[in-house]
Amino acid sequence: MPQKLSLLSATLGLLAVSFPAEPADDIKQPSGYRQWFHVNTMIVDKASPLFGELGGMHNVYVNLTGQAALKKGGPYPDKTMFVTDLHEFMVSDGSYVEGPRKALAVMVKDSKKYALTGGWGFQLWEGGDSKRPVVTDATKQCFECHQPKKDQDYVYSTYIP
Amino acid sequence: MPQKLSLLSATLGLLAVSFPAEPADDIKQPSGYRQWFHVNTMIVDKASPLFGELGGMHNVYVNLTGQAALKKGGPYPDKTMFVTDLHEFMVSDGSYVEGPRKALAVMVKDSKKYALTGGWGFQLWEGGDSKRPVVTDATKQCFECHQPKKDQDYVYSTYIP
Repeated sequence: MPQKLSLLSATLGLLAVSFPAEPADDIKQPSGYRQWFHVNTMIVDKASPLFGELGGMHNVYVNLTGQAALKKGGPYPDKTMFVTDLHEFMVSDGSYVEGPRKALAVMVKDSKKYALTGGWGFQLWEGGDSKRPVVTDATKQCFECHQPKKDQDYVYSTYIP
Repeated sequence: MPQKLSLLSATLGLLAVSFPAEPADDIKQPSGYRQWFHVNTMIVDKASPLFGELGGMHNVYVNLTGQAALKKGGPYPDKTMFVTDLHEFMVSDGSYVEGPRKALAVMVKDSKKYALTGGWGFQLWEGGDSKRPVVTDATKQCFECHQPKKDQDYVYSTYIP
């Protein structure tokens, strides 16, 4: 559990620091990620201290490049991309159901290009809108919280058969 | 929301009627469903009156045959298969994280073979164990609750971009 929560603060903590600025790098929003492998789902509910920044249903996907490595717990080959497709949720009579998209966060592997952040580039778009990237400093906004997971190639998500 | 809850009671209500008997038909547990299209996720929590029978994280997938129809809201071609991959969940500091598999439920389309139940065959395996099917009477255990969704070809799940 603590691992998953740390993942949240790592990949999405930047929601709390939403700069109306240029992105830190040239990461493009992927297309077709809804067709990727569904890694797992997690909900940050109102009772969580993280709700304000991270509340929602987190559907995590990985592209084909990273699938085999996911099952081994890393390391990941270049061009691996993870997506956190963050959705609103509604509670109805004790059940949590998925709502519309709230944000889209990615981490993409390029060992050389992103050598200073463990080989990973990071970006998040509010509302999933490609015109609203919020990562301007991947080290502070993303990588610092991923460092404890160095033994899993800085990825918190694990494979759930 | 009521739709989703009804889906639960429809496809998984049979958990409450767990017969140690032969399955109602010859539906085989699919392989590779973890690679299928992730339709949506839903959590039935302790506060739900359905928790006893249906508690857990419901990850719904559809095979390639049914994908295009899902986006149109049906009708579905023969050989479409939906899977509800039901997992345990743990709550940690207000966040819900996915645990191990609790059950696997499917509905598969064959207009002729399953004409008496809207063209759909149903089965559920406790623990995801192919040796523990629980559906012996698909009409009573499954189809009766799907009938209100006739206009969506008896499928409650809808496409969430």
